[in-house]
Amino acid sequence: MPTLQKTFQLKPYPRGFNLIETEIEDNMPELKDIKAGIAHFFIHHTSAGLTLNENADPTVRGDFERHFNKMVPENMDYYQHTQEGPDDMPAHIKASLLGSSVSVPIQNGKLLTGTWQGVYLCEHRNHAGSRKITITVMGN
Amino acid sequence: MPTLQKTFQLKPYPRGFNLIETEIEDNMPELKDIKAGIAHFFIHHTSAGLTLNENADPTVRGDFERHFNKMVPENMDYYQHTQEGPDDMPAHIKASLLGSSVSVPIQNGKLLTGTWQGVYLCEHRNHAGSRKITITVMGN
Amino acid sequence: MPTLQKTFQLKPYPRGFNLIETEIEDNMPELKDIKAGIAHFFIHHTSAGLTLNENADPTVRGDFERHFNKMVPENMDYYQHTQEGPDDMPAHIKASLLGSSVSVPIQNGKLLTGTWQGVYLCEHRNHAGSRKITITVMGN
Repeated sequence: MPTLQKTFQLKPYPRGFNLIETEIEDNMPELKDIKAGIAHFFIHHTSAGLTLNENADPTVRGDFERHFNKMVPENMDYYQHTQEGPDDMPAHIKASLLGSSVSVPIQNGKLLTGTWQGVYLCEHRNHAGSRKITITVMGN
Repeated sequence: MPTLQKTFQLKPYPRGFNLIETEIEDNMPELKDIKAGIAHFFIHHTSAGLTLNENADPTVRGDFERHFNKMVPENMDYYQHTQEGPDDMPAHIKASLLGSSVSVPIQNGKLLTGTWQGVYLCEHRNHAGSRKITITVMGN
Repeated sequence: MPTLQKTFQLKPYPRGFNLIETEIEDNMPELKDIKAGIAHFFIHHTSAGLTLNENADPTVRGDFERHFNKMVPENMDYYQHTQEGPDDMPAHIKASLLGSSVSVPIQNGKLLTGTWQGVYLCEHRNHAGSRKITITVMGN
């Protein structure tokens, strides 16, 4: 089977941790034809990331935002890359801590995520606009 | 070659960083037939993760646990997701910092890890029980 | 198409965050024949990592180094794995925070990275020497 690949824009999300699994699945209906494989989700940016985490309780996503802001604070005196605003350099660091891609097994036409796993867009900029994603699906 | 895929339960591990490479290899004997490819290990949970790190000295794994407990402490006053106990919200954050999958090249039937690289189950809950893993192998 | 796979040594880089995308592309000219797929870059070490981040302003890479040294300090009193020097245990932790691989979509013979995305070698040891990388390319 040829590799399936699609690049598209997410709708804009606010700063914080946002569930995007439904939006991703809507953009890749061909998933349903894959018996076994891997879906790779990739974000084309360096100030936002992707991760998998709890998909039910919104306070989890709020706690992520609050903790990341403490672990990677704004306005540290050692930041030299400051010309794009106080949220910019922390956004780069958070993006690499979380990563620019997640990959998930596909089985019988569905993402084989756990019951509580959802795909997060980790948006670290205050005013980012729409983000670009590429989905690549390999399998049979 | 069709995609190889297998889902199974790990035996339960205590909180901390645990070497699971032998257990993973025992569950995927078909690896030996792959000349070149990728093995993808995926955990179906949001309070435990997978990573690759040093496989020889157990104090490395202890230092990981001690440092992660400092970097992502329990009982922070800004945590709102607290109903499942003080270890729960830190477990979610640690899981995303480390990631829910690792992928490793396969060459001539073997995982092409470095001499000192082993697969860690990063177990962040106090009493988690068995964790579910899916291995997906793609290649020729 | 068979899986493309190549293992090679990077030239040595100093401690810190170093752009290596050109060196990686020079080692995998076969990329240009792939219409759609995934390139997987893997580092065979536990005290250095790979990530994608901003490829233009060198102060970003300096801020990464300064922030990681604060988030994962040397000489913490709870480190027990100390026999290889004060930079060693922090190097292991940083390596897992950033990860041992990055994977990037390939489209029409090119890495489909964003305008500002470059591949970083995250070198956490003071005197590491050359690091070993394996590139695996799957696709059509």
